[in-house]
Amino acid sequence: MCLHSLADSHKPQRDFLSSDRHAPFMIGIAKSIAMREFPLLKALVVFRRSCRLAFVLGTVILISVQVQVQAQAQADPLPSWNDVASKKAIIAFVEDVIREGSPHFVPPDERIATFDNDGTLWAEQPMYFQLLFALDRVRLLAPHHPEWKSQEPFASLLKGDVKGALAGGEPAIGRIVMVTHTGMTPEAFDQIVLRWIASARHPTTGRLYTDMVYQPMLELLAYMRANGFKTFIVSGGGIEFMRPWTERVYGIPPEQVVGSSVKTKFEMQDKIPLLMRLPEINFIDDKSGKPVGIQQYIGRRPIAAFGNSDGDLEMLQWTTAAKGARLALIVHHTDAVREWAYDRNSSIGRLDKALDAAQAEGWVVVDMKNDWKVIYPSEKQ
Amino acid sequence: MCLHSLADSHKPQRDFLSSDRHAPFMIGIAKSIAMREFPLLKALVVFRRSCRLAFVLGTVILISVQVQVQAQAQADPLPSWNDVASKKAIIAFVEDVIREGSPHFVPPDERIATFDNDGTLWAEQPMYFQLLFALDRVRLLAPHHPEWKSQEPFASLLKGDVKGALAGGEPAIGRIVMVTHTGMTPEAFDQIVLRWIASARHPTTGRLYTDMVYQPMLELLAYMRANGFKTFIVSGGGIEFMRPWTERVYGIPPEQVVGSSVKTKFEMQDKIPLLMRLPEINFIDDKSGKPVGIQQYIGRRPIAAFGNSDGDLEMLQWTTAAKGARLALIVHHTDAVREWAYDRNSSIGRLDKALDAAQAEGWVVVDMKNDWKVIYPSEKQ
Repeated sequence: MCLHSLADSHKPQRDFLSSDRHAPFMIGIAKSIAMREFPLLKALVVFRRSCRLAFVLGTVILISVQVQVQAQAQADPLPSWNDVASKKAIIAFVEDVIREGSPHFVPPDERIATFDNDGTLWAEQPMYFQLLFALDRVRLLAPHHPEWKSQEPFASLLKGDVKGALAGGEPAIGRIVMVTHTGMTPEAFDQIVLRWIASARHPTTGRLYTDMVYQPMLELLAYMRANGFKTFIVSGGGIEFMRPWTERVYGIPPEQVVGSSVKTKFEMQDKIPLLMRLPEINFIDDKSGKPVGIQQYIGRRPIAAFGNSDGDLEMLQWTTAAKGARLALIVHHTDAVREWAYDRNSSIGRLDKALDAAQAEGWVVVDMKNDWKVIYPSEKQ
Repeated sequence: MCLHSLADSHKPQRDFLSSDRHAPFMIGIAKSIAMREFPLLKALVVFRRSCRLAFVLGTVILISVQVQVQAQAQADPLPSWNDVASKKAIIAFVEDVIREGSPHFVPPDERIATFDNDGTLWAEQPMYFQLLFALDRVRLLAPHHPEWKSQEPFASLLKGDVKGALAGGEPAIGRIVMVTHTGMTPEAFDQIVLRWIASARHPTTGRLYTDMVYQPMLELLAYMRANGFKTFIVSGGGIEFMRPWTERVYGIPPEQVVGSSVKTKFEMQDKIPLLMRLPEINFIDDKSGKPVGIQQYIGRRPIAAFGNSDGDLEMLQWTTAAKGARLALIVHHTDAVREWAYDRNSSIGRLDKALDAAQAEGWVVVDMKNDWKVIYPSEKQ
């Protein structure tokens, strides 16, 4: 777009230079006469010519800077958002904290923004995608584990009874996660995740999971970064499950991903140093764990935080409980046609207390159905 | 330096423009005659004048770009390093991994460099500066703790017997650290650290502690960042003890500091969300904890790591145990006059196994006495 605009912007300049079609010819005659009579004028013209390249380059640079500034000022940074209150609140906040002289000005280094992942940056129904990854992996590993045929939750799972497998609640889920997520190096787990994310398909949409990220949120991430924000993921999901693909999909590098984790152990095997993922919880980055994770990993309080469920309540409270301009935003899943509609009664991504808090505190609530023109990137025109 | 060079570089240009002192006067006469006779020439001169600003700006931009490129190519990025093997190895490594087309080229996102702090970026004798902070704080808090007069290690400490206080070993040190580092919010601890670091003086040099950082290492940090590296601290020291001042002193923001930590708890007090620092170890980022901390916080293996003691051995092993160009460097404290000389027999910053490993593996060893022109920034000319 920039190069294109630049090319267009040259036209008026060229037209101006040749506004009188006869001018170049007339100037040519005048010059030839003058130079014959005034050798010093000839030197002047030679000087002018030798400077032409510098002049042209200088002009091109100036115009390109102007065009870029204008494009930034005029282009809609959030084109997939309808022109609604949530969008206006986001833009008003960003413009307020970046404007020098504003009473709410925040230096770039302190522009920390934290984003939940499941249900905020990508979808999370009919269950967290990481759990779908774990279930896929149980099926893949089953041939090496004949004992699973008689052990729950694996037995139900291998019979196709996911509901039965998960009926064991958190202990059952914990067993599934540990056998599928640990006992290998982080690098090996990276590769396992990358293979799955590149090929696995969502059970109802048939899409790749990374195609079920929210286009309006991708724009929001880019908009905040363009305004000097450092964007972090702060998710209840596994940190090593997200890191292999967040840079490509969200533009968020591994070191800016905060999440739940298992313990890792350093060991030497045949004189080769290894890290090994252990079947033991290290940290749960959910609910009251989110402010703790933010402090531990980032070391400063965000000035903007984005979530969608009660798991994000404490992060939003923590973010807004400080002086200065603060933005707290909740993505409310209201679109049963294009995505899913759920809140207070959902077991996945329950939004109940945080919805009450949003109303009481005046946090921004995004109504997905009405606020977003598109949900997924593929719907973008 | 850049502005200065830019100003100098203008002089030849100005001299060129006025190389003949009479030229402007002569050109003026020629112009006035010519313009009276040739109105179109007048238009030409007006056009030339209107373009002068663009021309000058374009020229300034071009020259400044040229000067910057030349300055980068020619200036010594490590002026406080003697022209020795360690300096050459650093520069050869950096130039190798940043050169497109090099078999060892590393994209900027993967240029992760980790630096130990105590003994690598700043001094650590006669004891870790964080321990001196803790001792200062015990003295400050003593009036509120009359019971300390009869409790070790506090009793000895308050009598001025530091050696006696620390004779209790790690449990004694642990008690001192916990009473001085916990029971407050991270923000309150931030302020405590900032007050101390701004005023406390080193017991033998009388300097502020932040004046005891190593000038050659500051240059190294800046050099690596200028070449696209992301620089992290990975220290056995307390993460919250470093974060308040690392950005100002080292240019390393809080979110790029990895260190040891106590547990933190989220709680609501009178409807205000707080984090509280608890007297319980969360993570020890030393020895085999360093690769674990790197994986946990950064999520990728460094391609360059810098340390000075056996506490850094595993980080250096972990960094170098992967394909591609890798840089492992050890700062060897060899200068008893300008700093301290110690290695295999020191209880603080012991360098024994890691020195053997450096010799066996061909890691870079910096001989502080011979490799560094200056130690502290104040010695810089």
